Amino acid sequence: MKYIGNKQSFIDSKEKVTGKAKYLDDLKMPDMLYCKILRSPHPHARILSIDTSLAEKLEGVKAVITGKDCPNNKFGLEIADVTMLAIDKVRYVGDEVAAVAAATEEIAEEAINLIKVDYEILPIVDDVIKAMEPDSPLVHEENKSNIAKEYHFSRGNIDEDFASCDYVFEEEFSTHRVQGLYMEPFGAIAKWEDNGRLTIYSGLQSVFQGRNEIAKALGIEPSQITVKAPFIGGGFGAKIWIRNFHPIVAVLAKLTQRPVKVVLTREEEMLSTRPRVAPKIKLKLGMMKDGTMVCKQARIIADNGAYSWAATKILLNMSIRTDCLYRFKSTKTDSYLVYTNLIPTSGFRAYGNSQAHFALESFIDLCSRKIGLNPVEVRLKNAVHTGDLTIHGWKIKSCGLSECIEAANDSILKTRLPKEEQNGRIKRGIATACMTHVSGNRGGEKYDGSSAMIRIHEDGKVFVFSGEADLGQGSRTIFAQITAEVLGVNIDDITVMPLDTDISPFGLGTYSSRVTTVGGKAVMQAAEKVKKQIISLASEELKKPIAALDIKDGLVYYKADDRVNISLKSLCNKAIRTNKSIPFTSYISYDPPTVGADSTGYGDYSSAYTYGAHAVEVEVDTHTGQVKVLKVVAAHDVGKVINPSGVIGQINGGVAQGIGWTLYENMQFKDGIPQSTGLHKYTLMTSKDMPEIESIIVETNDPIGPFGAKGIGEPTLIPTGPAIANAIEDAIGVRIKDLPITPEKIYRALNDK
Amino acid sequence: MKYIGNKQSFIDSKEKVTGKAKYLDDLKMPDMLYCKILRSPHPHARILSIDTSLAEKLEGVKAVITGKDCPNNKFGLEIADVTMLAIDKVRYVGDEVAAVAAATEEIAEEAINLIKVDYEILPIVDDVIKAMEPDSPLVHEENKSNIAKEYHFSRGNIDEDFASCDYVFEEEFSTHRVQGLYMEPFGAIAKWEDNGRLTIYSGLQSVFQGRNEIAKALGIEPSQITVKAPFIGGGFGAKIWIRNFHPIVAVLAKLTQRPVKVVLTREEEMLSTRPRVAPKIKLKLGMMKDGTMVCKQARIIADNGAYSWAATKILLNMSIRTDCLYRFKSTKTDSYLVYTNLIPTSGFRAYGNSQAHFALESFIDLCSRKIGLNPVEVRLKNAVHTGDLTIHGWKIKSCGLSECIEAANDSILKTRLPKEEQNGRIKRGIATACMTHVSGNRGGEKYDGSSAMIRIHEDGKVFVFSGEADLGQGSRTIFAQITAEVLGVNIDDITVMPLDTDISPFGLGTYSSRVTTVGGKAVMQAAEKVKKQIISLASEELKKPIAALDIKDGLVYYKADDRVNISLKSLCNKAIRTNKSIPFTSYISYDPPTVGADSTGYGDYSSAYTYGAHAVEVEVDTHTGQVKVLKVVAAHDVGKVINPSGVIGQINGGVAQGIGWTLYENMQFKDGIPQSTGLHKYTLMTSKDMPEIESIIVETNDPIGPFGAKGIGEPTLIPTGPAIANAIEDAIGVRIKDLPITPEKIYRALNDK
Repeated sequence: MKYIGNKQSFIDSKEKVTGKAKYLDDLKMPDMLYCKILRSPHPHARILSIDTSLAEKLEGVKAVITGKDCPNNKFGLEIADVTMLAIDKVRYVGDEVAAVAAATEEIAEEAINLIKVDYEILPIVDDVIKAMEPDSPLVHEENKSNIAKEYHFSRGNIDEDFASCDYVFEEEFSTHRVQGLYMEPFGAIAKWEDNGRLTIYSGLQSVFQGRNEIAKALGIEPSQITVKAPFIGGGFGAKIWIRNFHPIVAVLAKLTQRPVKVVLTREEEMLSTRPRVAPKIKLKLGMMKDGTMVCKQARIIADNGAYSWAATKILLNMSIRTDCLYRFKSTKTDSYLVYTNLIPTSGFRAYGNSQAHFALESFIDLCSRKIGLNPVEVRLKNAVHTGDLTIHGWKIKSCGLSECIEAANDSILKTRLPKEEQNGRIKRGIATACMTHVSGNRGGEKYDGSSAMIRIHEDGKVFVFSGEADLGQGSRTIFAQITAEVLGVNIDDITVMPLDTDISPFGLGTYSSRVTTVGGKAVMQAAEKVKKQIISLASEELKKPIAALDIKDGLVYYKADDRVNISLKSLCNKAIRTNKSIPFTSYISYDPPTVGADSTGYGDYSSAYTYGAHAVEVEVDTHTGQVKVLKVVAAHDVGKVINPSGVIGQINGGVAQGIGWTLYENMQFKDGIPQSTGLHKYTLMTSKDMPEIESIIVETNDPIGPFGAKGIGEPTLIPTGPAIANAIEDAIGVRIKDLPITPEKIYRALNDK
Repeated sequence: MKYIGNKQSFIDSKEKVTGKAKYLDDLKMPDMLYCKILRSPHPHARILSIDTSLAEKLEGVKAVITGKDCPNNKFGLEIADVTMLAIDKVRYVGDEVAAVAAATEEIAEEAINLIKVDYEILPIVDDVIKAMEPDSPLVHEENKSNIAKEYHFSRGNIDEDFASCDYVFEEEFSTHRVQGLYMEPFGAIAKWEDNGRLTIYSGLQSVFQGRNEIAKALGIEPSQITVKAPFIGGGFGAKIWIRNFHPIVAVLAKLTQRPVKVVLTREEEMLSTRPRVAPKIKLKLGMMKDGTMVCKQARIIADNGAYSWAATKILLNMSIRTDCLYRFKSTKTDSYLVYTNLIPTSGFRAYGNSQAHFALESFIDLCSRKIGLNPVEVRLKNAVHTGDLTIHGWKIKSCGLSECIEAANDSILKTRLPKEEQNGRIKRGIATACMTHVSGNRGGEKYDGSSAMIRIHEDGKVFVFSGEADLGQGSRTIFAQITAEVLGVNIDDITVMPLDTDISPFGLGTYSSRVTTVGGKAVMQAAEKVKKQIISLASEELKKPIAALDIKDGLVYYKADDRVNISLKSLCNKAIRTNKSIPFTSYISYDPPTVGADSTGYGDYSSAYTYGAHAVEVEVDTHTGQVKVLKVVAAHDVGKVINPSGVIGQINGGVAQGIGWTLYENMQFKDGIPQSTGLHKYTLMTSKDMPEIESIIVETNDPIGPFGAKGIGEPTLIPTGPAIANAIEDAIGVRIKDLPITPEKIYRALNDK
């Protein structure tokens, strides 16, 4: 193949490296106003009064709004628990209280500071266990409890199975809030058009979901809104769903009849866009002496923060997915999502699966070591395989889990350094952890597909329309590669059109590692449909049977003698400009052959399950507790690689974010007040701490994905954390179960030991 | 029917009457520059040198270009005879010589005045007869003559037929240059995008043709350009094709890397956008005593001006169409398009057909009166009818010509005033003239169709995509009516999307009175295709057979019991948001069942031929020669009326423009220098001279057009001119054969008599 599997520079890389690519903040419009938002300084307080009079008088201020000026429609994903500006009370530090539109950002900022809010401070709840107690303060008073959502899943006879096991282990793990920290802060421009429709420019990962949510917040119909996404500088899940500022700028733009822009500051990003859900996960594992894992029980209590948004879905994934990584006989999970007066959490790369894997993959190592088994052997013994039906109903159509475990482990064994330095202060360890994830995820009977349109213009140039977003991960390039391969045209002749909900075919957006597998398949089918139109016309022109023709390098040729050929360009002109009247245009809606889970959580809801294993080597400074990751071997079953550059980029990024999550990053609070606002108060891994990464691509040629491909966006982050924790135990015999693994925790654990 | 045939306010009328609708000049872009063009003051001159140094030094000037700075690609429609800026010589007063992009229009204007051009004056040619002489100066020296194009069409044995006729008459008629004078001056904005593509904003009647021509001028591929049309304030044919300023602003925008806007002044409009082709038409008509018209011969010599553009097509229509209005036994036409050093002519509402009809319809009255026959009876005797195959191969599928003649004539007879006033100074006359035209016109084997896409969003709202332009004539409303009728939805739930060549389905544009008939049919078929998808899903949901269901008022209902129904909105949501996965989206390319003319001009190239007759009453002041049109009865066969408001609007506009052409407007020259630049030097009919207009709609239910509809855009202009000339003869016995019919000509003719 000419494009599939070969390294391909991103088709928009030139625009990006020359600085020409326009991100939201680069967009200018005549008469545009700037919005700033006043946020609550209190984690929990009743709003007694708001005085905006001074702000309104400031020159250059065009509008000041509070909750009472806005449509009073609660919105949210599964639970509608948020209003665009606070009404009556605030529930976390950062909650939106008022907003200003002014001629400049500086005036808007000044106006915000002139707004006086009189608060009555309320008692806060900042701990999930306390939040579940009956006399806890209520974050949402209209609910009877702080439990936003709970799930109870059970398969097999777990009590009988635990009773039959040689060993039963139980431990609690916990993970914490961390930030997406994408390069481009989130924002939006709202503009009401002359025909009464609203245009929102915003780097949303899901323009169609965004359209519906904004409509819900404003109380209008979705198709009254056009959402257009300019270039997007990362999202990692925090840009799938709208933020309050989306409807806020729409209200301000309506009031002022001018375009209104908001771009969050990094401080606002860290206050108001959604960090990773923070759960406590209690695991119970039943094992046999030979390493067979028989049954697994979990109790999860997850800190949602003040509003739920996607956290319910996160909890669902946390509750189910890891059960499908091994051949458990029975599993049981009880999980709770609990409101607190902390920053609301939501989706973040891996969508709950990273937290669950941290717990399980740490726990397997811990248990295996306890009974003297090699954790790698235990994993291989229990791993699922192609053809398996997992305990929750996944039909595994392709699975390279064992190959990934073996490849990662073999490589780290070959290259590892001595267990410790001569002086004994530095100790080294290796370990492996693995993971499973989805490529798309059907919810119930909902659509989980993607649509695509391909149009070839009269000069033979190909335009690809998709509703799926490229956040920088390279999906536009994937779509171009697939189209170029199917149509036999040069990739430079392909334009992947920007996102616009009026025009882009319906797509759910970029999450669940679905874009290549689902969006790419839609593009592939659209290309195949157009190819049929082309070959059919060529057959007429060349007087050769359809089956005897193919396309290569922009020429339709007779396979038996390629001197008999006709250029795509001349065919296009004939198709479009003559009385042949064949539009070389196709529209496809592809929905994968999957079945959404039933109410018990049972279903084969992804067309392709992905697998990977990371083997890491760490060294620990036993004097300081400092951990350094020396190497990560990341082996991933991607089905079939479309763009090796893209896969390696995802691996590098996922590993870096995984290390950051595990060792460095932490959003801390004191009495409900965030302590980590702004990058100077938030420790990030820097490039000099980046280990060597070896990428191993395992191809299992998935029967459904385009050219056999599966998703890789989220998987690369998942196994790094538990692999590091496991390698630390291998190095120093100490197990840290609560993320992040700080030098302090190691130091204390070493001392305790 | 709920919408078809019922008066419908234009769907964009609210935007227009509130002043919110954005026309080109309303578009603002950050950093936009303004372009002004230096034009030749000489009708024919060699450019010896151009000094732009002073202009370049002026503060605020960002670029100054001359011909040598531009891609040297000749462009044009059939004959590529124009460069975007003059190279070596100028050929008419107004020819583009240099262009400036500057921070304001005023600076650009000032800079233009600072450019020094050294010209060598050349002898001019301003008369078509002289231009055809062998020693005439050549407008395009690379050609051997000034004849840009010639046609020779012949059917039957004309010499034999003339010999057999009772009478043979011969006369010469001529018509003149007049302006389109649409409300919105023509213009464009060019902007090079970050990805290297070019966006042109311009109110083109044909965005796709415009795209190709700009590409040709710039030497790039059409799909590298996006043409977007904002609201368009009229065009009448002058905005079908690009002007030189389109590639000029593209070159300036590339040089400055900023958007560049040009909007012509009214003076520039009158110099450089294309007036009606001015022909001398010598007619010879063979008649029998009973009024049978046996044969017709024509020699046409048409003044093209300095560049050809669409004038070749105009000449073609002039040479053929009127032969198909009556049942001639033989016809012969020899026609010539001749270059002169005057303003280039091109297409203008009726595209040559108005000139030919002026000659023939004047001549028929003249001849009939000479032999004592009633001209109306002569027309009725010779008129074509449904089922006829005309002499040039038109298959007439619907024809209300006789009905139109009778209806118009009956009405004017009933309401006419006395032949003369008591004092005898004012004399009154009535007369009728008729016409035939096309609804679309296939050129050879070229595409003559239109494509359409319909997309229904998840909230049940319908988006219609077409590549055909609404210049104000109301085609967006027609498309909405057709879609609403077919889909059984409210017209307010329909959005007709703006023109954008990246997105709009391919369409040829607004000319040949084709938009309702061809574009509307494509929209109708697209709507029917989506309707099938809707009914099919409804059949599944309601468990009723497909044939038993229909849609009305947004509900799909069981015809046998309309209490069994389901809303379109809920079906849309199900189609798009569930695993039903049916995109309610359709894409259609419709090409009418027509055959382009062969090299002899024979073919059935329009799916629907249109007919009409105007009866007028005039009064002539015999002391001053002043003519006043008292009443016009306009009867038109529209096949089936879709929007009566639109048809009446077209009739009112066509009649007004027809009167203006006949009595008032005239672009005059002296030694090649235009004398009528600017509205103060160009006599227009004002509203107080507007006669009473009676519109009579004849419906013949065309078998091919959507709901039976045929075109009406151009026909309404055609018969007014000859009807007035005929009525003048009826009033005062004087025949004016050269347009315009000025008081001076009448005064002199009366005096001569």
